[in-house]
Amino acid sequence: MIARSTIAAAAARLSPHVRRTPVIEIDGLSLSVHFPVKLKLELFQHTGSFKPRGAFNRLLSATIPNAGVIAASGGNHGAAVAYAAQTLGVKAEIFVPASTPATKVNRIASYGARVVQGGEAYADALTACRARQAETGALDVHAYDHADVLAGQGTVGREFEMDAPDLTHVLVATGGGGLIGGMAAWYTGSVELISVEPEGCPTLHTALREGRPVECPVGGLASDALGARQVGALMFPIAQTFVADAVLVSDEAIAATQRLLWEQMRLIAEPGGATALAALISGRYAPPAGAKVGVVVCGGNTDPGKLVSA
Amino acid sequence: MIARSTIAAAAARLSPHVRRTPVIEIDGLSLSVHFPVKLKLELFQHTGSFKPRGAFNRLLSATIPNAGVIAASGGNHGAAVAYAAQTLGVKAEIFVPASTPATKVNRIASYGARVVQGGEAYADALTACRARQAETGALDVHAYDHADVLAGQGTVGREFEMDAPDLTHVLVATGGGGLIGGMAAWYTGSVELISVEPEGCPTLHTALREGRPVECPVGGLASDALGARQVGALMFPIAQTFVADAVLVSDEAIAATQRLLWEQMRLIAEPGGATALAALISGRYAPPAGAKVGVVVCGGNTDPGKLVSA
Repeated sequence: MIARSTIAAAAARLSPHVRRTPVIEIDGLSLSVHFPVKLKLELFQHTGSFKPRGAFNRLLSATIPNAGVIAASGGNHGAAVAYAAQTLGVKAEIFVPASTPATKVNRIASYGARVVQGGEAYADALTACRARQAETGALDVHAYDHADVLAGQGTVGREFEMDAPDLTHVLVATGGGGLIGGMAAWYTGSVELISVEPEGCPTLHTALREGRPVECPVGGLASDALGARQVGALMFPIAQTFVADAVLVSDEAIAATQRLLWEQMRLIAEPGGATALAALISGRYAPPAGAKVGVVVCGGNTDPGKLVSA
Repeated sequence: MIARSTIAAAAARLSPHVRRTPVIEIDGLSLSVHFPVKLKLELFQHTGSFKPRGAFNRLLSATIPNAGVIAASGGNHGAAVAYAAQTLGVKAEIFVPASTPATKVNRIASYGARVVQGGEAYADALTACRARQAETGALDVHAYDHADVLAGQGTVGREFEMDAPDLTHVLVATGGGGLIGGMAAWYTGSVELISVEPEGCPTLHTALREGRPVECPVGGLASDALGARQVGALMFPIAQTFVADAVLVSDEAIAATQRLLWEQMRLIAEPGGATALAALISGRYAPPAGAKVGVVVCGGNTDPGKLVSA
């Protein structure tokens, strides 16, 4: 378990390095739903996703060897580790699978990291990363299954609660579960926390049903962000206690939500960033009457030209 | 003069219809300047620009004839009037020049308004609009030179002050001057208010130098948003008293700022929306040491594919 005080300490540690992302309330009519929704715009975080929170918290809490840091990632975590390493003046080596889009590979490289691309999915990059880490002795920065990473991501929940204390239901996209795990540790049941996952990567949905993290298929539009093969061991017991529900959305619903975010709000979200809201737009999750609903829009690393012409 | 109490009354009138847009603080490093900047993200307003504030305030303060409302616009004001008319259940007819981009024409039409496109610049559309208004008797909703429109736009200043009370310097893009005029009437000298204009449309810069609104050339990247031929008669005395400076930026600086907003913040701003920040990025405006700087990002109606590949 991650204590709220641990997340508060992470917030203090991170505050010089991360942006306090804003919350905007959107009327139901704009979203074709019957209630307003508060969006936490975490896509405006450094590197275009929430991931620097966990990355900085891990790097600032560890002694970093001369070999620097090393990480496997679908893309966003790698960009965050590369950015944090550059900021703190240490070397970074990032392993990504073949499916990682050019936008993300270029972003990682732009922060001065060495990028190694190979393998089909995130799990394959993780295997290659571990082999390399054994050679170099670099600090391994896991994308989600580490207490410091979870505590860092939990600061999203802390800020959301501060800026929208009235929320009763909060929707978050889940891949490996770092974000929802950290947020669950923050909220500890004080809101109904809903995991939203693409049908192609049903990690927490399956784990909650089976009672343990299990390997899942990895596919679909958002797999470069939510394509972990299973949820983390550390987050799972937290989710069992403090995640109220896990729902699945289709790729069509994710793409429609990306278009809606652009048309109605001038926001460019990547598929993984639009996944949580897609549960409301598609009706896959319907909050009870009177609920005060919040959604984290967690990433924006996509090619907007493709999105808008789609 | 527009009183602060008039702007506060407008805010109360508008609040069911406009979004309270958020403020985000961006570190200087992300912007390649030596100080943090608070951005008011008014591009997330309904219709993709600040314009609904003035449009709703005008429509809600008037008796609307059966002929509905009519307006001339470079695009954003037209979209706002069309949106407000649709919301309030009245007809709208919008005149735009040939230079209005398809993004904006389509947006106006999407709200059910009749769009008439013709003439070279905004001023030509205004002439056509006035002729038509004389025929139909529709309520003319001027894009900037009306007290209700100025008071509506002034609510941007009111919100910015509430959310960022520490600011000492605020930069705003100027075309016809509705936004800066309304904000000047709100701030009444309590911050240094800086007008930023493209070199191709130097309306307030020229007017302040000449001591009266004068006709200016209309050209360049942002002319579909800032391409009024001269500033409004109503805003000019307010600007003379409460606008501290007016600076000009190049189209290259505007385009570079659009790219920076995407790369560093995942924001898609249209040229007119990036113009105010461009003054800082390009160094055309350098605030004094210790200044607390705010910038309004006022519009996002552009084709992001073009922007990012540019």
